[in-house]
Amino acid sequence: MNDSSVSLSFRSDNVATIAPEIMSALEAANHGLAAAYGDDEYSALLNRKFSDLFEAEVTVFPVSTGTAANALSLATCARPYGAIYCHEDAHINTAEGGATEAFSGGAKLIALPGPNGKVEPPTLAAALRHAERGIRNRPQPDAVSVTQASEYGTVYAVEEIAAIGAMARDAGIHFHMDGARFANALVTLGCSASEMTWRSGVDILSFGATKNGAMAADAIVVFNRELAEPLSYRLRRAGQTWSKMRFPAAQLIAYVEDSLFLRLASHANELASQLGRELAAMPSVRLIAPVEANLVFVAMPEPAIEGLSAAGVRFARRGGGVIRLVTRFDGTPAEVDQFIALVRRLIG
Amino acid sequence: MNDSSVSLSFRSDNVATIAPEIMSALEAANHGLAAAYGDDEYSALLNRKFSDLFEAEVTVFPVSTGTAANALSLATCARPYGAIYCHEDAHINTAEGGATEAFSGGAKLIALPGPNGKVEPPTLAAALRHAERGIRNRPQPDAVSVTQASEYGTVYAVEEIAAIGAMARDAGIHFHMDGARFANALVTLGCSASEMTWRSGVDILSFGATKNGAMAADAIVVFNRELAEPLSYRLRRAGQTWSKMRFPAAQLIAYVEDSLFLRLASHANELASQLGRELAAMPSVRLIAPVEANLVFVAMPEPAIEGLSAAGVRFARRGGGVIRLVTRFDGTPAEVDQFIALVRRLIG
Amino acid sequence: MNDSSVSLSFRSDNVATIAPEIMSALEAANHGLAAAYGDDEYSALLNRKFSDLFEAEVTVFPVSTGTAANALSLATCARPYGAIYCHEDAHINTAEGGATEAFSGGAKLIALPGPNGKVEPPTLAAALRHAERGIRNRPQPDAVSVTQASEYGTVYAVEEIAAIGAMARDAGIHFHMDGARFANALVTLGCSASEMTWRSGVDILSFGATKNGAMAADAIVVFNRELAEPLSYRLRRAGQTWSKMRFPAAQLIAYVEDSLFLRLASHANELASQLGRELAAMPSVRLIAPVEANLVFVAMPEPAIEGLSAAGVRFARRGGGVIRLVTRFDGTPAEVDQFIALVRRLIG
Amino acid sequence: MNDSSVSLSFRSDNVATIAPEIMSALEAANHGLAAAYGDDEYSALLNRKFSDLFEAEVTVFPVSTGTAANALSLATCARPYGAIYCHEDAHINTAEGGATEAFSGGAKLIALPGPNGKVEPPTLAAALRHAERGIRNRPQPDAVSVTQASEYGTVYAVEEIAAIGAMARDAGIHFHMDGARFANALVTLGCSASEMTWRSGVDILSFGATKNGAMAADAIVVFNRELAEPLSYRLRRAGQTWSKMRFPAAQLIAYVEDSLFLRLASHANELASQLGRELAAMPSVRLIAPVEANLVFVAMPEPAIEGLSAAGVRFARRGGGVIRLVTRFDGTPAEVDQFIALVRRLIG
Repeated sequence: MNDSSVSLSFRSDNVATIAPEIMSALEAANHGLAAAYGDDEYSALLNRKFSDLFEAEVTVFPVSTGTAANALSLATCARPYGAIYCHEDAHINTAEGGATEAFSGGAKLIALPGPNGKVEPPTLAAALRHAERGIRNRPQPDAVSVTQASEYGTVYAVEEIAAIGAMARDAGIHFHMDGARFANALVTLGCSASEMTWRSGVDILSFGATKNGAMAADAIVVFNRELAEPLSYRLRRAGQTWSKMRFPAAQLIAYVEDSLFLRLASHANELASQLGRELAAMPSVRLIAPVEANLVFVAMPEPAIEGLSAAGVRFARRGGGVIRLVTRFDGTPAEVDQFIALVRRLIG
Repeated sequence: MNDSSVSLSFRSDNVATIAPEIMSALEAANHGLAAAYGDDEYSALLNRKFSDLFEAEVTVFPVSTGTAANALSLATCARPYGAIYCHEDAHINTAEGGATEAFSGGAKLIALPGPNGKVEPPTLAAALRHAERGIRNRPQPDAVSVTQASEYGTVYAVEEIAAIGAMARDAGIHFHMDGARFANALVTLGCSASEMTWRSGVDILSFGATKNGAMAADAIVVFNRELAEPLSYRLRRAGQTWSKMRFPAAQLIAYVEDSLFLRLASHANELASQLGRELAAMPSVRLIAPVEANLVFVAMPEPAIEGLSAAGVRFARRGGGVIRLVTRFDGTPAEVDQFIALVRRLIG
Repeated sequence: MNDSSVSLSFRSDNVATIAPEIMSALEAANHGLAAAYGDDEYSALLNRKFSDLFEAEVTVFPVSTGTAANALSLATCARPYGAIYCHEDAHINTAEGGATEAFSGGAKLIALPGPNGKVEPPTLAAALRHAERGIRNRPQPDAVSVTQASEYGTVYAVEEIAAIGAMARDAGIHFHMDGARFANALVTLGCSASEMTWRSGVDILSFGATKNGAMAADAIVVFNRELAEPLSYRLRRAGQTWSKMRFPAAQLIAYVEDSLFLRLASHANELASQLGRELAAMPSVRLIAPVEANLVFVAMPEPAIEGLSAAGVRFARRGGGVIRLVTRFDGTPAEVDQFIALVRRLIG
Repeated sequence: MNDSSVSLSFRSDNVATIAPEIMSALEAANHGLAAAYGDDEYSALLNRKFSDLFEAEVTVFPVSTGTAANALSLATCARPYGAIYCHEDAHINTAEGGATEAFSGGAKLIALPGPNGKVEPPTLAAALRHAERGIRNRPQPDAVSVTQASEYGTVYAVEEIAAIGAMARDAGIHFHMDGARFANALVTLGCSASEMTWRSGVDILSFGATKNGAMAADAIVVFNRELAEPLSYRLRRAGQTWSKMRFPAAQLIAYVEDSLFLRLASHANELASQLGRELAAMPSVRLIAPVEANLVFVAMPEPAIEGLSAAGVRFARRGGGVIRLVTRFDGTPAEVDQFIALVRRLIG
């Protein structure tokens, strides 16, 4: 019943299937009874598995969407009169319908510019320096949020994260990472999950799994223990505490088991890398940002873009002759080849 | 890995499995690509199936929990300074962590008394009569919410619903039904889904499926079309709009396909009925409320309650020697027999 | 242009004038320039005067209404998922349009019964005992609020306040006092302002002055220093930080100077006492609550109530043949005599 | 007790006194009783006076601050998921502690650039064109807000306001005017109050009086009748409905009586005009924005700025050698002369 007629889609990683290993885990979990609302054994195991993965005792809260993960994390980090620093193109600022403002009771997102969708440490430093602390009619610094990989498919180096983490610590504010494409970034950096997060100062993480093979199981991973309890109440009251928690827990356990998440992300990244390499080599096509995860932003002549659309290829348009291509864990090199061939024909 | 050692649980319908038909539907949906955020064909089919079921053009929004369904429905029905009438034991008033207050921006729940967990029409009428409309420092009537089946496992008759619906219409307020156990009530009444809802004046319904066989797929069903658009924004901003919407949609389609939901509920209701009948016949055991769905409230001597606990049986205690027993679609008559035999032994 | 035709009003203390001493203070403050938003010398003096009055270093925030004082105090004391215990007839629960729910982001008022408008310590103790701490879907105890004098014109003894204060401390929750009629209660108790507040465990006080002679100057008095800073931000963002702060500050300084507030309240209390005494002595008239401040609640035959209305007397009706009479600092014994004579005639 | 030692302050119009006519009106209102919460005769007269002034039937709500006026107006205009367009330097965006976000439940301010603190109609048109209506994860256009006079002391021409009003009407959004310095702008334009507001499409106005001679009486003036009722509830619940409403009403009546507000503003504007003219004529001093109200922004050499500070002159610094000077209704030409002489000496 799905879009089977569409041979070629680079529209989004949200159109993907569920990875077979995760579907199997759902089936395996569907036996016997299990306590509700997270008091089950799957949830306990989930916390252990993630504590192993992150080499620290963490608390994991499965949630239904990345928006919930981001907004409830940030609502726990920021006072209603607080300021949250983020990139101007951050998903929380542009594409979550004001969820962070809603859950926080009206905290202010301070949108920072920066090349390739990344907050550069000096930009943040300047913003924090200009924050008017103690001035009652100004928002008060409470958190910084970075997206890893970013909305442009670029990846913060560990040193960049650590620099932001150090600033956050010095400023006494919380550090949130929107990891909607956490696995894609981790594969690129080749570092440990802990280096990319708490060892670099991250307090709380939106851990995305849905885009990379889960059915509906993103999670909030809490490193800073003080945040776990208030967050747990906010989740319940937000309608984000599933009654049959064993099922999202089982998905997330399978997701990290035997590094499945890294294998899935690695495959998607390779497809993007191939796409980027071949497109960059074409005349009149230009990469808009380095390809470091599973997103490719390219500028190409408008007739070529029209031609792709006419051929039934799915992708997102940005203004000014730029398109966004997203590769998926369940995509194939053949699809990339087919796309490249098509572009070649269109470019002439 | 689950509670397999526990032979006997009447703790909750949230500890249940997923019905095989629904698990199969998830597997069947896991092929090919599907548009995200509800623009997929499963979501379109879901709207058609539910429109058939309810004999009216309805809009269906899958959500992750009943709390989300209730609170976001009511936030759409009530102004921040509005009053929402409900039973004092309603889940929205006692067990959702203030979700309705949070999402509505501080609307007031007006808790009404009533036997067996039900709002009696005259009680509501009196409350509406005493509402101080136009008085700026009083909450203004905006909605009434009933739970069908109620928190005590009782069921509103169609005439009772219609009486409340008429009052709501006359008062110019919205009528919400918390249908966490919608199927259980519908089986009991034997009426049509439309009679139990919009034909009796219901504007918006929290349609529960998780307790009765789905994995994680409750839904909001909107009858009053004016509510659909504002609700859609509130859902997105609440992090309740799944990216891979085909999967909750597929669950809900399978849930109503061939009346599966009625068969599952019917089975659970029969187990409760058997439990109630046999318990009521025992000396020193007393039913606290009529058994009309899959919940049984009984008073019994404290030593018997202790004995049940000691035997490893799971159930919820209420104060004053009262316990709550919940039967499930995946429970068995043998379990009920086993429980009854045990109680008999304990009562002596 | 005012209600000069009305010879007799016991409607409310909000219909009163401004005390001449306070009007003079406004005029006196209207010379030269003064820094804005509370950085002026009047505001500094206000803090010193109130610190003297309360025998402790307090922070005073003038606000425009008692509703603002209550709701912003409580929003600072309670988390969005918190519970606030109060009497079921408390102004915050019945007559502030949901202000506390709004400013707190949806905290829950737990309404407790109690004779004469007062929360009895054992009732609070039981409520705190039954609070389901740590249960994620229940509101979590954060504050208790008492009204001194109460909505029934009764007054908590110092021992009662101290008992509640001790419970609040033991439970780790904040203690708020709604002192809309603080002076009237203080006169009745004859204790010090500190005994009636922080020495008995009060953390934060809504200090009413408007009803007792100010123009528009209630205040929040903060005893628990941790609350002052977050409150200051909430006030500014609530539009409750006056730019020309010298004028409310000047009113409040004059209000406590030379114990003016006690003299004004004493006068109003005496009028109420006289009213109560004479009414209680009449056949078929009955006091509903002890007269301990400037409010008198009496039951009398419906024809007498009608007769009072017909004679143009202003007062508030409660249900069931009960009326509320409020005396004011600017009322006169002659008015009370006139009223009593009228009732006598009506009762026959 | 005030800043009498300071001979020279151009710090703010919030440091000013109360105009004698307004103080007299307060005294005159302080006789007899008056109904509370706006049911008094002063409030009725206020509505008539303002309806005359604006040549239309308007509803006036006195509030304690401009922040309350702005935030509650906008909360009434915008849905929680709405977008409010304003200049990036608008007070609502930079200096009200997030009040609009708080009262609206998290609406989004869309900050637009524009020379001299003004939103240019084409900029707004482009923003509205790019608004993604119907896209659930984007804020939905609900209101536009302009500041008249602007934060830079510039004034929108009637044609500019009308152009924005026409856009708002076409876009189906509300039009709010922040008139903290309404009188100053009106004097400059020389048009009628109706031309500057509803005849040009304004739905709701924050009418400032405090900066221009009132004690504490700003007001919301509602032209679009649909907004009046919901606003009245929001005000009460925000603690912005004074009990002794006659006093703010009396201030506002006196403020517009015999065009007092225009005379006061005219005086302040003339002082600013004089300041601007003389400063602009000096070498190495440069006006940053045209002087059209009572604000003067000038760049001057840093040593001159230091010299002014050293001499005890009060003013606000902006970055980059720019200072802001504010003239007041109670300022004098002699003070301006003195200031100019001082600058001349410092510039050399």
